[in-house]
Amino acid sequence: MSAPAFDPKNMIYRNLGPSGLRVPVFSYGGWLTVGGTQKGDIVKELMKTCYDNGINMFDNAETYASGQSEIEMGRVIKELGWDRRDIIVTTKVFFGTNRSEKQNTRGLSRKHIIEGCQASLERLQLDYVDIIFAHRPDVTTPIEETVRAFNYLIDQGKAFYWGTSEWSAMQIQQAIEVAKRLNMVGPVCEQPHYSMLHRERFEQEYEPLWRYENYGSTIWSPLDSGMLTGKYNNGIPEDSRFATNKAFFENTVKELNSPEGKAKIEKVKSLTKIAEELGTTMTSLALAWTIVNTNVSTCILGATKPEQIVENLKALEVYPKLTPEVVARIEKILDNKPALPASYNRRDESGKLI
Amino acid sequence: MSAPAFDPKNMIYRNLGPSGLRVPVFSYGGWLTVGGTQKGDIVKELMKTCYDNGINMFDNAETYASGQSEIEMGRVIKELGWDRRDIIVTTKVFFGTNRSEKQNTRGLSRKHIIEGCQASLERLQLDYVDIIFAHRPDVTTPIEETVRAFNYLIDQGKAFYWGTSEWSAMQIQQAIEVAKRLNMVGPVCEQPHYSMLHRERFEQEYEPLWRYENYGSTIWSPLDSGMLTGKYNNGIPEDSRFATNKAFFENTVKELNSPEGKAKIEKVKSLTKIAEELGTTMTSLALAWTIVNTNVSTCILGATKPEQIVENLKALEVYPKLTPEVVARIEKILDNKPALPASYNRRDESGKLI
Amino acid sequence: MSAPAFDPKNMIYRNLGPSGLRVPVFSYGGWLTVGGTQKGDIVKELMKTCYDNGINMFDNAETYASGQSEIEMGRVIKELGWDRRDIIVTTKVFFGTNRSEKQNTRGLSRKHIIEGCQASLERLQLDYVDIIFAHRPDVTTPIEETVRAFNYLIDQGKAFYWGTSEWSAMQIQQAIEVAKRLNMVGPVCEQPHYSMLHRERFEQEYEPLWRYENYGSTIWSPLDSGMLTGKYNNGIPEDSRFATNKAFFENTVKELNSPEGKAKIEKVKSLTKIAEELGTTMTSLALAWTIVNTNVSTCILGATKPEQIVENLKALEVYPKLTPEVVARIEKILDNKPALPASYNRRDESGKLI
Amino acid sequence: MSAPAFDPKNMIYRNLGPSGLRVPVFSYGGWLTVGGTQKGDIVKELMKTCYDNGINMFDNAETYASGQSEIEMGRVIKELGWDRRDIIVTTKVFFGTNRSEKQNTRGLSRKHIIEGCQASLERLQLDYVDIIFAHRPDVTTPIEETVRAFNYLIDQGKAFYWGTSEWSAMQIQQAIEVAKRLNMVGPVCEQPHYSMLHRERFEQEYEPLWRYENYGSTIWSPLDSGMLTGKYNNGIPEDSRFATNKAFFENTVKELNSPEGKAKIEKVKSLTKIAEELGTTMTSLALAWTIVNTNVSTCILGATKPEQIVENLKALEVYPKLTPEVVARIEKILDNKPALPASYNRRDESGKLI
Repeated sequence: MSAPAFDPKNMIYRNLGPSGLRVPVFSYGGWLTVGGTQKGDIVKELMKTCYDNGINMFDNAETYASGQSEIEMGRVIKELGWDRRDIIVTTKVFFGTNRSEKQNTRGLSRKHIIEGCQASLERLQLDYVDIIFAHRPDVTTPIEETVRAFNYLIDQGKAFYWGTSEWSAMQIQQAIEVAKRLNMVGPVCEQPHYSMLHRERFEQEYEPLWRYENYGSTIWSPLDSGMLTGKYNNGIPEDSRFATNKAFFENTVKELNSPEGKAKIEKVKSLTKIAEELGTTMTSLALAWTIVNTNVSTCILGATKPEQIVENLKALEVYPKLTPEVVARIEKILDNKPALPASYNRRDESGKLI
Repeated sequence: MSAPAFDPKNMIYRNLGPSGLRVPVFSYGGWLTVGGTQKGDIVKELMKTCYDNGINMFDNAETYASGQSEIEMGRVIKELGWDRRDIIVTTKVFFGTNRSEKQNTRGLSRKHIIEGCQASLERLQLDYVDIIFAHRPDVTTPIEETVRAFNYLIDQGKAFYWGTSEWSAMQIQQAIEVAKRLNMVGPVCEQPHYSMLHRERFEQEYEPLWRYENYGSTIWSPLDSGMLTGKYNNGIPEDSRFATNKAFFENTVKELNSPEGKAKIEKVKSLTKIAEELGTTMTSLALAWTIVNTNVSTCILGATKPEQIVENLKALEVYPKLTPEVVARIEKILDNKPALPASYNRRDESGKLI
Repeated sequence: MSAPAFDPKNMIYRNLGPSGLRVPVFSYGGWLTVGGTQKGDIVKELMKTCYDNGINMFDNAETYASGQSEIEMGRVIKELGWDRRDIIVTTKVFFGTNRSEKQNTRGLSRKHIIEGCQASLERLQLDYVDIIFAHRPDVTTPIEETVRAFNYLIDQGKAFYWGTSEWSAMQIQQAIEVAKRLNMVGPVCEQPHYSMLHRERFEQEYEPLWRYENYGSTIWSPLDSGMLTGKYNNGIPEDSRFATNKAFFENTVKELNSPEGKAKIEKVKSLTKIAEELGTTMTSLALAWTIVNTNVSTCILGATKPEQIVENLKALEVYPKLTPEVVARIEKILDNKPALPASYNRRDESGKLI
Repeated sequence: MSAPAFDPKNMIYRNLGPSGLRVPVFSYGGWLTVGGTQKGDIVKELMKTCYDNGINMFDNAETYASGQSEIEMGRVIKELGWDRRDIIVTTKVFFGTNRSEKQNTRGLSRKHIIEGCQASLERLQLDYVDIIFAHRPDVTTPIEETVRAFNYLIDQGKAFYWGTSEWSAMQIQQAIEVAKRLNMVGPVCEQPHYSMLHRERFEQEYEPLWRYENYGSTIWSPLDSGMLTGKYNNGIPEDSRFATNKAFFENTVKELNSPEGKAKIEKVKSLTKIAEELGTTMTSLALAWTIVNTNVSTCILGATKPEQIVENLKALEVYPKLTPEVVARIEKILDNKPALPASYNRRDESGKLI
């Protein structure tokens, strides 16, 4: 393995929302790769490349590869002998390990949150994770029970912080308020889908959370499953994620061939030209664009090859080039900026009621 | 004035959400009529007709007809000498009386809520209203300040309950939680737009509020400004609300002539046939349909003539005829039932995870 | 009296800290003038000029002119018949009316806060003030007692908000936290001295309050008792405040003749040149400079003549001309920018620990 | 090793602030010596001398000698086989062990407080410390998170008390109030710099903490890095701390040669005469002077040789000789008594308002 391309000291860090935890703006996630298509030595290579280049945050979930993702990552962390204090490890409970039909091995009941976390820690061979996420909302469990269960884990030293994933803004706000009422620790971040082509929930629905709660975020699919690398500009390559996970991506592929899908590809083609002007790739541009939004605490990368990680981190070099002018040009091409939530009492810049 | 067509004893009552207040399923509102196009004796006639036929709930707002709506209604209540304990009077603060540009005579600051309510009570010549609404959300005022100010009014005896109007589900949920944290009284109902043709927010966004908070509702525009009476089936009549409030309804009229507007009219035509089958009018069918949804606490009527009120109340006769089968036929014509909020952990009727 | 020079609609408004109250960036205060040197008709002229030009906020204190300031302002408010909802009236308790030696007619005990406020309201002929301030900290009264007493006034409808004046950041933070613990209303703003020549406490000590509590401010002496008008550039004129309030300003005058005082005058002379470049006066520049700092909610003017108010409001025209470049030139002349509070864990702009 | 010079029974004990812990007025700290210049047998000799002469409190920090200070002290405690119940061991988290650039191995996040404490306990070979300090404030972490994390350590039995070091009075007050609100344990003491020549923060800024919170203190550098021993009266000796830690003390040495530095030396010379009159050394006088201030709970000694400890403890003999008259003479020479925080409502000794 060659020397790291990036000096870890140049990584940019941000506070994870209202917490004191400092997270790197790019982190690495096991979704769809680790423990599934990627096992054994390659995982060690991937994670070592991450760490050596400044990515010290690793995202997981009980359901990723039916628990195998945690097993692989846990093994590598042990083998590489990293200082536990220097890395950030996260996982998520909700789906159980195999999305089984069993009623109590999933969801956000006190029972599954505690039992699920314990099983994850065993697979990871760790005493605690840094952040534990509720992987989805569970409308059949009162939010108070869920808030209490995550606080139990924190009080037991099994986790330092907790977060949400794919919750509605309303559910998150409620969890924050319930925690306040109970003098408990509220969730500190959401893990949502966010990318150039998927913006509405992040920029519109969650906007009050960024503005009033200083909520954090760990975003996934910043490249829209590869769409924003430009590799689908001329159809679906045989070795792509869409081709290798046919069942999972069925709808995505269908959408790709729809008029909307084709319009997206046209946008990617136009953005590619801007990338070239900036002397970079479409991929780096798309990744750098996500962290221009400072409501993004960290952007999760899902590379399958070590060299992709190094490639992705070139986004750190593009980032300073994304001046307001360049961002405005990108907005014009994307033409999908969500409107802010309606307000009946806002003022314009001069302070006048509008 | 002729004898009442309906025995008030046959009025259907529902609890207003989580409160002990019993509201009639049909109430009367001053919006766009009382104090504006309708003044003096006709208002007394309208309100007397309401009361004599079982409608004892009157809805108002500081902004309706720039305060004149409250003045008219207050005068009539005094003149008719009704037992204050037998009627329900509501009003709303937010816009001020004249939607003026003044910074502190509008909004949901403590200052405007208290001062605005006081001014409304003076116009109404009442010591208190039964319910006071926040007529819109105010994103420039912290929700805690607003919750505290409405509780001040309740503690001072100026109002018995408070509610929201056109707030997002998230804002309502937050107000409920903040009130719980402060051991204060939360809002008990929302005043939203709801009708056969305007369902999304009520049935989808607010669904968790109905389900988990037992939130109440006082719906407005159940006939979509007349659209659902069928009177626009052949164009806009000269004496209709759209014709007499041109500026206000400009966009509505524009929409009426759009392809979507025309599709709506087709639906109304099909529904009219069902109404005829049931031996009633389109208007009565549309009104009755709203109260089939038991999340509707009361449906606000906005009639300009006493005979319209009597006509509207025929909905009480149609209501029992709206069996599940008939409702299903209506749904098929409407073809606009909003999907429920996504849930990853729901069970089907047999209890199986779906 | 001539027509107002400024359209009130052009006044700039800001939220008063974490409250929903909207305050004009310039307000008018009675300190040292109203009820003392200025009585009767001139007060009415002054306040009418304020209101007609967009200043609808009037600041007072029980101690100003031994209560005469409140009496004068209250009389004028009544005589001019303004809509109470459209104006903001504030007062302060602490010193009593005559800075007497009596032990319980001053301070921040529950007794004096309640009794003092009642006496102020009687002098003002008002049912309530919008904001009531603790005019100084009282180290002999527990802060909890003071927080409770101000909440009593708010619960009784005697005031909508409460604030502090010349408290230490520590005392303010404590009051905020005590209010949180008791589920009470915390103070929303501080009334401190702030000007080009008096910056340390505002910009340094209070900095955490602006940053973390979104605390508001109503600043006094923005012209440093006239120093920043340039009128002392060539000595003390006979009709100036320093000359007419000799005892009060004894130390100030002494300082004026010290080396430090002379250095200040040199700065004012240099700034006057910038004012001339911008086509304005030293006074307007100094006033506009205070509101460039958005931690200033409102800047209290203390004019003794109606024409001064109009002159002062020209600051609204200078304000947009204070670009970052101009502000930087001013900073260079002032050469008194306070350092931020020391931090042992700050990061530089790239996120690196420093 | 000779017999102890002092009977441990004569040691003076004070409660550590508002806690029930009794601390000796003199304690021993590892800063700049233990694990750095002093290792192995000498550490055992030093600590045994402390203990045998009545000093049973040992102060440490994760950052002292990059963790070596804890390792040395932990080893000695184990080797000497002291009763754990009879000694007080403290440590501090914040800087990490090597003041490294790593983002999460320092600061006051939940992560670092818990992980840092665990690592310290491992180095000390202890199950718990008596007091754990936040070695500095961390403005990037909400104080609530820090309060919760220290309470976690206390709940887990890893520490009995927690304190602050070099925090502003405002930050300490806030931590106390947040802990009260959460029904948690607040900090009990501050570890500040305090000596005859460094008084402002201790006597002025912290004064409300002593007065109203009965806050405790464990002061460091009571001899101002040797300045108050008189050894710099004639320049910097070659074996002094300033000479051996050149980089660290660069600024101190520079100051020593400045006019202010020279003025300080003159004061020390005058104080030395008083010491001689009292039949003691400058060192003993300076140490005894600190404990005359009963807001000092314990004064941390940093001796590098066993005999220095015995010398230092002679301060216990001087202490009773520091009558009000002698203290007044010392004040006159020091001429640096900080003014008390301004108060507008204080009473003089007769109870009159002043």
